[in-house]
Amino acid sequence: MSIFGLIEYKDASPEVRAVYDDIMATRKTDHINNFWKAIAHDPATLKRTWESIKQIMAPGALDPLTKELIYMAVSVTNGCRYCIASHGAAARKKGMTPQQHAELVAIIGLANETNRHAAALDLQIDDQFL
Amino acid sequence: MSIFGLIEYKDASPEVRAVYDDIMATRKTDHINNFWKAIAHDPATLKRTWESIKQIMAPGALDPLTKELIYMAVSVTNGCRYCIASHGAAARKKGMTPQQHAELVAIIGLANETNRHAAALDLQIDDQFL
Amino acid sequence: MSIFGLIEYKDASPEVRAVYDDIMATRKTDHINNFWKAIAHDPATLKRTWESIKQIMAPGALDPLTKELIYMAVSVTNGCRYCIASHGAAARKKGMTPQQHAELVAIIGLANETNRHAAALDLQIDDQFL
Amino acid sequence: MSIFGLIEYKDASPEVRAVYDDIMATRKTDHINNFWKAIAHDPATLKRTWESIKQIMAPGALDPLTKELIYMAVSVTNGCRYCIASHGAAARKKGMTPQQHAELVAIIGLANETNRHAAALDLQIDDQFL
Amino acid sequence: MSIFGLIEYKDASPEVRAVYDDIMATRKTDHINNFWKAIAHDPATLKRTWESIKQIMAPGALDPLTKELIYMAVSVTNGCRYCIASHGAAARKKGMTPQQHAELVAIIGLANETNRHAAALDLQIDDQFL
Amino acid sequence: MSIFGLIEYKDASPEVRAVYDDIMATRKTDHINNFWKAIAHDPATLKRTWESIKQIMAPGALDPLTKELIYMAVSVTNGCRYCIASHGAAARKKGMTPQQHAELVAIIGLANETNRHAAALDLQIDDQFL
Repeated sequence: MSIFGLIEYKDASPEVRAVYDDIMATRKTDHINNFWKAIAHDPATLKRTWESIKQIMAPGALDPLTKELIYMAVSVTNGCRYCIASHGAAARKKGMTPQQHAELVAIIGLANETNRHAAALDLQIDDQFL
Repeated sequence: MSIFGLIEYKDASPEVRAVYDDIMATRKTDHINNFWKAIAHDPATLKRTWESIKQIMAPGALDPLTKELIYMAVSVTNGCRYCIASHGAAARKKGMTPQQHAELVAIIGLANETNRHAAALDLQIDDQFL
Repeated sequence: MSIFGLIEYKDASPEVRAVYDDIMATRKTDHINNFWKAIAHDPATLKRTWESIKQIMAPGALDPLTKELIYMAVSVTNGCRYCIASHGAAARKKGMTPQQHAELVAIIGLANETNRHAAALDLQIDDQFL
Repeated sequence: MSIFGLIEYKDASPEVRAVYDDIMATRKTDHINNFWKAIAHDPATLKRTWESIKQIMAPGALDPLTKELIYMAVSVTNGCRYCIASHGAAARKKGMTPQQHAELVAIIGLANETNRHAAALDLQIDDQFL
Repeated sequence: MSIFGLIEYKDASPEVRAVYDDIMATRKTDHINNFWKAIAHDPATLKRTWESIKQIMAPGALDPLTKELIYMAVSVTNGCRYCIASHGAAARKKGMTPQQHAELVAIIGLANETNRHAAALDLQIDDQFL
Repeated sequence: MSIFGLIEYKDASPEVRAVYDDIMATRKTDHINNFWKAIAHDPATLKRTWESIKQIMAPGALDPLTKELIYMAVSVTNGCRYCIASHGAAARKKGMTPQQHAELVAIIGLANETNRHAAALDLQIDDQFL
């Protein structure tokens, strides 16, 4: 259960509706994720977070699918169930294939493994990397 | 200082040298990272880890640069200095531009932020994502 | 389901009851959280943990509500659902307003974001901060 | 060493200087932290992050010192050396006493301990907290 | 719900069945954990992960129970519910007593606490430890 | 540099000296780790933490070396350099062999890898483990 409950479009203030409208227009969908409906209790955070996501996740030097894969790598490492589910759905919508998903999971696992090898051995950074 | 010290090629056993040789041949370089030289004190882990990395990071459904970006997303989230330095160098070698690096950092920051929003609000997963 | 099951007051040993009694007296409540009922399977840890919490969370140079907010910042960052729920309830009981909660969540998100910016860029500490 | 090097005021573009000027005016200081000088290589992230911090860390329902303590709780939990140093300095500037610092450290330690007790025992959330 | 669903033995490819057979033979059981059934959608990762676990968790300089306790310490620290449940069951099967479990939980909590004390105080390493 | 500086025995208050004396007597050493010298600025936390460690790390159902290995597993997973160094030294003093150390590192890496596989696949817990 989301801690504050969810604010549906019909119950939203004009300020919140404006963000919901922009989300739906930008994403070409009529679905507002629970994330937005829960965070809408704090309109300032809703607006700021949406604008950050809109700017950061837009096509740029990295394509939208690659951006979602990076998002998932962070979310899995942090163990965020909601984020894994929602960004997994977003990645599939942007074309992630099952084989790409499998490779993503393998890399995330491997990096978490070797990160700890490096910590355990207190590795000094190679001069070449500085 | 790396906890066990580093095993240089000239001091390595034939078993360790075989892995070093394969690393240098696969990566077309004559540089062995400190990671390998430190982990070489345990030849079984050296061999297993190298074979995992060789398999997982090879070109597949995801291209090698995308794979490095995913690796970095994990490493930054875990705060692994060595891994950020070594995989940052690897990503640049595989073509990462400064603009791509900047976008990577922005996404990593954003995902770490929204992961905590989701945790703080105890979000329930949308039916559409199940 | 809690792994060891929960030890209710009526089933508790005198040693465990003494801690339960002190919790209820200190907190002016007749509710013992599941946390205590689960950890009571190890009376030594029950007693030590309660005494630590009683000492650390008592009014001091920081007021009790501020202490709960700090507790929640850690719990959200670690993704501990139980702790977010129980310390969220404790914070509301100590006067946390919805607006304060919203600001807390925003700060937690922001700090998790910039912590990763700092890691990604391997920032050197300003001389002024040393 | 910061990965991209630091952009000093005299070398900054007008876009970056405008943010630096706002930081110095808002904070009533002539010191720009290395954080900003490093992130300035990506002016979009510099601007967005500064505006988020300016908005979130301003006096609100929580006072500025409480906000810094929350920031530090996250930074310590994530093990971010730079952030611990810079926000520790900020907290002292805003009036944090040594006794408050000591209590902060104790709470952070305690919460990290009990978060893991809760995880280890797979605690179910009390009905009262839902 | 596991994201990809679970691959049961009767529906598995020969390649996957071979791993399942080896798991059951090695562990002297006819139960295949959901972990393997879920990861089996990626036969390469299934095979590699099983071979790593088989090699690393086999009796060596550390006995099998000690190895499970170490596994649980990591899993609790990462907050991995599935891993805590599955490796808790494995540890009990290998002889973990309730008293040993209680001590394990206490140490995990303590280490997470003092790790943060060390980070908060930015401790310098004693010369004796270098 | 430790944030508060280190309190040496000769400069310590009687309250702090009493803890130092007990540490040296219990551990049969005349070396006080920097951890204690730094945390001594807060005598209440010094005393409470020492008493917790003394109780939890004493021989019990688990032997002292196993306890140190568990401590290290947590410390490596959290990336705590100081704790890895100090508890590594403690483990060696209690008899940890290089081969045991190598196995410890391999298990820590593996568990961190599979913890993320489990999170990425959102594994449901087997009925047998409940």
